[in-house]
Amino acid sequence: MLMQKIRFVLVGTTHPGNIGASARAMKTMGLASLRLVSPKIYPSAEATARASGADDVLALAQVHDSLEDAIKGCRQVYGMSARLRHLPVPVMNPREAVHDLTQYDDDAEIAIVFGREHSGLSNEELDNCHKLINIPANPDYSSLNLAAAVQVMAYELRMSFNPEVHTGRIGEQREAIHAEDLSHLYDHFERSLTAIGFLDPENPRYLMRRIRRLFNRADLDRNELQILHGILRAAETKARTLK
Amino acid sequence: MLMQKIRFVLVGTTHPGNIGASARAMKTMGLASLRLVSPKIYPSAEATARASGADDVLALAQVHDSLEDAIKGCRQVYGMSARLRHLPVPVMNPREAVHDLTQYDDDAEIAIVFGREHSGLSNEELDNCHKLINIPANPDYSSLNLAAAVQVMAYELRMSFNPEVHTGRIGEQREAIHAEDLSHLYDHFERSLTAIGFLDPENPRYLMRRIRRLFNRADLDRNELQILHGILRAAETKARTLK
Repeated sequence: MLMQKIRFVLVGTTHPGNIGASARAMKTMGLASLRLVSPKIYPSAEATARASGADDVLALAQVHDSLEDAIKGCRQVYGMSARLRHLPVPVMNPREAVHDLTQYDDDAEIAIVFGREHSGLSNEELDNCHKLINIPANPDYSSLNLAAAVQVMAYELRMSFNPEVHTGRIGEQREAIHAEDLSHLYDHFERSLTAIGFLDPENPRYLMRRIRRLFNRADLDRNELQILHGILRAAETKARTLK
Repeated sequence: MLMQKIRFVLVGTTHPGNIGASARAMKTMGLASLRLVSPKIYPSAEATARASGADDVLALAQVHDSLEDAIKGCRQVYGMSARLRHLPVPVMNPREAVHDLTQYDDDAEIAIVFGREHSGLSNEELDNCHKLINIPANPDYSSLNLAAAVQVMAYELRMSFNPEVHTGRIGEQREAIHAEDLSHLYDHFERSLTAIGFLDPENPRYLMRRIRRLFNRADLDRNELQILHGILRAAETKARTLK
């Protein structure tokens, strides 16, 4: 299924600021389809202010009188539930829910339904949800802000569609070096440290082993290698001048 | 490593409401250690209002003059970065970062550093971070609210420590049924549907196969089984009465 086919439905939201913040949270993760069911105060300047650049999501948001209207055409309806209610309905965490979603075709419309700030979804509204999603939380304080819950769900969706894994380094080009470059560096270290009297040439092993360990691990690039050679050369030169 | 050893450091926060909302986001996920570096306005009634029940986290938050002070004693320092800067530093997404954290001992103190709302962390502050975390976002609009970024990181940490996976059903006790219960049900269907003239007894196979497929999948419990038998019985009785 597709990110564009996922609509977030906010039911009976009390604070317009939360609607704006939810629109922003959605847009940061690439979601655009917002439905509002009987919001207390809407439209509202506070919603627009908190949307902060996601006002296009707000502008396109459809307002409905009932949840039934808001979920029309949906293949699957997930309801967010903070409390683990006594309902024989499958409950999953957001990650499981996103995995569950992947079973649907690209043309399947999906709804994720968020309840009121204080009271969540009514039992009648929950009956319209095929599955429940519960965000794992501190059992002593599980009250996520509405927009925070929207952010978590939107984030999980984005992680599933675009994980954008950047393991390793990014940014400026780093020229790789090879094992022989490191050998030359260690030779240079040994000469320089001897020249400056830091290394006992009769027993260089312990210190050199530690230096190797450090720079073997450091994943040097060619520029850094040249910097180190430069430092060692300068130290040597200084030491020879002083003799 | 341990959840209690993770401190969230907010640097140069402009809006006190974001400090309160961050405290709330942390507490919902079971995090309690908050450090503030040179917040613009703090303490503040707005911070307390937005903390909404997480005022204990605010009350315990230490305020520092410099990032160096705030990360003292930390084994590892992760910096949040919205922009993928030209810095040869490892960058990971939140999930990778949480995985990376698991390598540290239980007594290792860890800092996760969040920059200013508009300008993030300065280059000097980034130099204090050993690794960078980037939340995957919409390339056209990647500006997560500060507390939303805190929520995402805190959520990933909780998912790693307490995933609380609830696959399957929860709530009221459901009495399991067995294969023979389903066979009896299908026999009853066949009799009842024949009695009410819905099933052609000469060629019952197609319809019965569909009915079996449906209820095999439906994961019935004993109560639901009894309800279905009740319906079929009622239909039969009615049909016989009409004859």
